[in-house]
This record gives sequence, structure tokens and C-alpha cells, in this order.
Amino acid sequence: MTIEASSARGFLIPIGGAERKRKSPTILRKFVDVCGGTEARIAIIPTASKLDTTGPSYETVFERLGAARSRSVPFATRKDCHNEEWLDVLRDSTGIFITGGSQLRLSRTIGGTPAAHELRSLYRSGVHIAGTSAGASYMSEHMIAFGDAGASPVTHMVAMAPGIGLTSDFTIDQHFRERDRLGRLLTVLAYNPFIIGMGLDEDTAAFIGPHGILEVVGSGSCTLVDGSELEYASIGHQPGDPVSLLGVKLHILLPGSHFDIKSREATPALEGVDREVQEL
Amino acid sequence: MTIEASSARGFLIPIGGAERKRKSPTILRKFVDVCGGTEARIAIIPTASKLDTTGPSYETVFERLGAARSRSVPFATRKDCHNEEWLDVLRDSTGIFITGGSQLRLSRTIGGTPAAHELRSLYRSGVHIAGTSAGASYMSEHMIAFGDAGASPVTHMVAMAPGIGLTSDFTIDQHFRERDRLGRLLTVLAYNPFIIGMGLDEDTAAFIGPHGILEVVGSGSCTLVDGSELEYASIGHQPGDPVSLLGVKLHILLPGSHFDIKSREATPALEGVDREVQEL
Repeated sequence: MTIEASSARGFLIPIGGAERKRKSPTILRKFVDVCGGTEARIAIIPTASKLDTTGPSYETVFERLGAARSRSVPFATRKDCHNEEWLDVLRDSTGIFITGGSQLRLSRTIGGTPAAHELRSLYRSGVHIAGTSAGASYMSEHMIAFGDAGASPVTHMVAMAPGIGLTSDFTIDQHFRERDRLGRLLTVLAYNPFIIGMGLDEDTAAFIGPHGILEVVGSGSCTLVDGSELEYASIGHQPGDPVSLLGVKLHILLPGSHFDIKSREATPALEGVDREVQEL
Repeated sequence: MTIEASSARGFLIPIGGAERKRKSPTILRKFVDVCGGTEARIAIIPTASKLDTTGPSYETVFERLGAARSRSVPFATRKDCHNEEWLDVLRDSTGIFITGGSQLRLSRTIGGTPAAHELRSLYRSGVHIAGTSAGASYMSEHMIAFGDAGASPVTHMVAMAPGIGLTSDFTIDQHFRERDRLGRLLTVLAYNPFIIGMGLDEDTAAFIGPHGILEVVGSGSCTLVDGSELEYASIGHQPGDPVSLLGVKLHILLPGSHFDIKSREATPALEGVDREVQEL
């Protein structure tokens, strides 16, 4: 599965949080497969989490899924991000997994350090990078730092910050359906419609391939809001002022669906036996 | 404002509920203006409400706004809907106002009676009809009877019922932002994309003119979900199964914005002094 490793970027795999780890761990198993299966060497970055157990616990998960090596590199301070031994662990990996927690802790700790440099450079040279929850948000160049719940966009409902910049196509939001986050994703679109807003439900991942084709994997849905045909946007001055958007394109993709970043075309999943599918 | 009364339909005016009645009653004042201002004769249908005070309370509101006549016709049973004296009140009106409460009480009580027949026929001949909350929902041919909250569409989250059918272009939902109803409106779209889903916030109205141009009035926003370019929709079998939609067009219209039903084109409000507006 790493056939493109030498010639192209790796897979970028944002996950909406709360992915299954024991029973039917579809997403994590596919991540290990993409990274080489029994030859996979996974590095785990647990920096977003306050818990010392997060890194070791993912080590166990990836070992159980058959990875050849699974090792946590617990960058906790900016000084840690210069630790050559840990950077070598990253350099020796076929896949890197960024855990959940706080995306601002990630950006504050890693931003501008050799660890950030390595992550970007390894991804460009074919290493696959997955991140869940905060780890998914952090992947974006323009990252959602925090915000309010609600379906409707409202002025000042979302705060943005610079992420690590593995993608500038998407701003990624997570726990999407569970925490009711469409409003804040639409607010991001009103700031700058060139971005595609991606909202990932829990236990749902987007496997973004090196050629810009995204596949949805897991048990929930992936909501995309595309501003490329936006005719108009306005934002108020006061917090709580409504936001106006004319011409947003919205897709709700189920597992197995695809989206082509270049053409902005969405393709449904193949018909399942237990679903009633209408071709329009 | 009733210049088109003899040649065309009246205005259809769904309101998202909780419209202002004393301070800045923008929507109700405009309704009275459209109905003829000091010559307006308003009939009130309080059938949706359980409270005996609803009809008389709106009588006072419309009198205070300068209507020449304001009278409640409290159809409470199907037999009431044959009461010729009350039907004459409808026939003698320039505008009819349907209050909030339960839309199923409206459809159960009025559906198929002479009162329903009069409402449709008066609207076609130029009488203006406003309805708030349940009264707005009831206007649709395909009405939302009830449903669950949430931003994401989910199988079985919405129950539909036949409304009075003053419009088959729109299925109308109300208290939209306040009760988080985008998910159920998108679910309706997945049932049949020919409908435009309209979600009205509280104190927000759509003034739909006889020639199919809609203007947003009030203090909130009007969300439209347009399935005319939908590429794909699927619905699950079990309650809670996710719904997939590819290619929904979404508009969030602020007061002063317009939407043309025929061309499906949205136009923003003119620039306000206190808003930062970006032309894209």
C-alpha cells in the first residue's frame, strides 16, 4: 500500500474522534494496512492529551493490529521537539498518528520546531499521517481552535489559529454531528470561501490520497461544505450577528463515498444490501 | 399594496414564530400594510392554539397596528369549519392570519372542510395569508408534522403530513435556528428533492409575492436548502441510520435578501451601515 511512498505524498487521514479501538476498529486497521500492515512502523504523538497513558495505550492498539513497531514520542515541551532520538523515531516510521486532546496544545508545543518540520517533510515524501479529534484539526493550515455549537453560522462563533499545514484544501472539524458543529464550519467558509470545510463524525475518517481523492471510512458521515460556487457572504461586527451565505454546496458523504478535491465532485458509496438507495 | 389582488394570488407570509408584537413589530406591521393598512380587514384563525386568549390577543395587536377590522374566527371543531357566518368573515377579509400551536391540530380540524376550501380559493384570488410557527408549517402541501432536533439528517427523524397546500414549492420549518432543525429539513429533501426546504428563525418572515419572488423580513435569517442540483440521495431503513446527500445548494438569507423561486437565484440584502459586506 506504500507503493507511492517514494514518488508522492503519503495519505492524510483525519479522524472525527472516538474511533473504535477493540471491536471493529475499521479505521485504525486500515491505517495500519496503508502503512504496510505487518511491516508498518508507527510513531504516536500524544502531545494534545494531558494523560500520560494516551501514548502507551495507542502503542498497544497498533501492536494488537499487527504493526511491526509502535512507539510513542511524547513531545511535551518545545525543547522536547528538538530531541534527536525522538525525531529519528519519526524519520524511521511509515505512519504517524496524532492523538486527541487540545489542538492548541499541539500548535503551541510543536509549531515552528524541528518536529513540525519533520512532520511536513515526511508527509511530502510518502509517510502517512493520521490524527484523531484535536489531531485531525491540527492538520489544517487554517485550523479551528475552538468555537460554539449550533447549526447556523453566527459572527464570532469560531476562533481560528494556524495549524501544521499538511493540507490547505480543508479546514477540518471533528465530533461533528455529536457536538453540532455545522454553524462554526459555515462561519469559517464565510471568512474565506476558498477552503472546503470538512466535518467528521465520531468513528469516521477521511483517507485523503496523494492524488487528491478522499474516501470516507468508518461508521458515521463526513460533511463537506464547498464555497467554490459561493455568490455572496457577509459577516456582522458584533458577536452573535447572523452570517449570510448564498450558494454553499453541501455534501453529506457516507462510508465508501469519494470526493475529488480538484474537480470538487462527490461520488456515492456502492449500493449496500441494507440501504435503500435512490439514484437521481 | 393590493394592486395585484384582482389579477393574481395574494402574498403568502410564513413566519418563524415569536414575531414581535409590541416593540418594533416589523413583520406584523408589514403584513397589515400589505393587506391595505388602515383599510385592512384581518381574520385570525387561532385553531392551532390551545389557549382561548390567542385569537383576542392578535385582534388587539392588529387593531393597534391600524387595521380597519380585526376578528378572530375560532374554528375548534370540524363542524365549526362549516359555520357560514365565520366563513363570511374570511370572505370579507383582505388578509388572514393563522396563529401558532400545533400544525396537526390545524390539519385535523380544517383539512377537507369548507374553511380549507375558502382559504385556498381566497389566496388564489388575492387575499394575503400569513401564518406563524404551526401556522407557517401548515401552509405547505407537504408539511413537517414533527421531528427531532440536530444539524445532520438522520433516517426517520422527521414525520410529514399533508398541509393545506398554499405552496408546493416549499416545505416550511420554523423556530429554525432556535430549535436546531436543519437536519430534519435536509431529511425532507432526501425524501423528494423537488421541494425547497425553508427554515425560518424566530421573528423572521418570508414575504412570497404573487410572482414567486420571496423577500426576507424581520430580525433573523431564512435558510433555504435547494435540491434542484442534487446528484444523489440515500436514506437508511432503521431509525437513526445516516442519510447521504450530494450536491445540496444552501443559502442563508438575511432580512432584505430575495430569492426567485423560478430561477432559484438568491440576491443579498443591500449593504447596511453596520455590516461588513464582502462581494465575492
